[in-house]
Amino acid sequence: MKLAKTFGRVLQEARLQKGFTQEELAEKCGLDRTYISLLERGLRQPTLNSLFLISKNLDLTTSDLIKKVEDKL
Amino acid sequence: MKLAKTFGRVLQEARLQKGFTQEELAEKCGLDRTYISLLERGLRQPTLNSLFLISKNLDLTTSDLIKKVEDKL
Repeated sequence: MKLAKTFGRVLQEARLQKGFTQEELAEKCGLDRTYISLLERGLRQPTLNSLFLISKNLDLTTSDLIKKVEDKL
Repeated sequence: MKLAKTFGRVLQEARLQKGFTQEELAEKCGLDRTYISLLERGLRQPTLNSLFLISKNLDLTTSDLIKKVEDKL
């Protein structure tokens, strides 16, 4: 699904921009590294809760993170 | 959970602003009315896909819908 794939790419870019490994981001968020990996590959969809948690730990607002997805679609 | 409740309130306000019943919005989105009802009551979390689908059918960008949630939190 295009949306999940696009989100995954945006997430990966934002994570790398902060210089975090998947493991580091997962730990900050209290999420599983596998979940971050699945999200980045577009194999899982984030819930609203994960969106807020992840964007917070990437120093982005959730609306800014979503805006990046919209810009890429 | 505060986030889901806040999202539910924002969703309900945006739906009423368009003058749609839950049933009408659900039908436009190809979602179940029960799901819209659960979202509005904060009993379910929307996925990324539902967020994009619902905001599109409310004539909002998804980032604008999320911004409304952030403003209320």
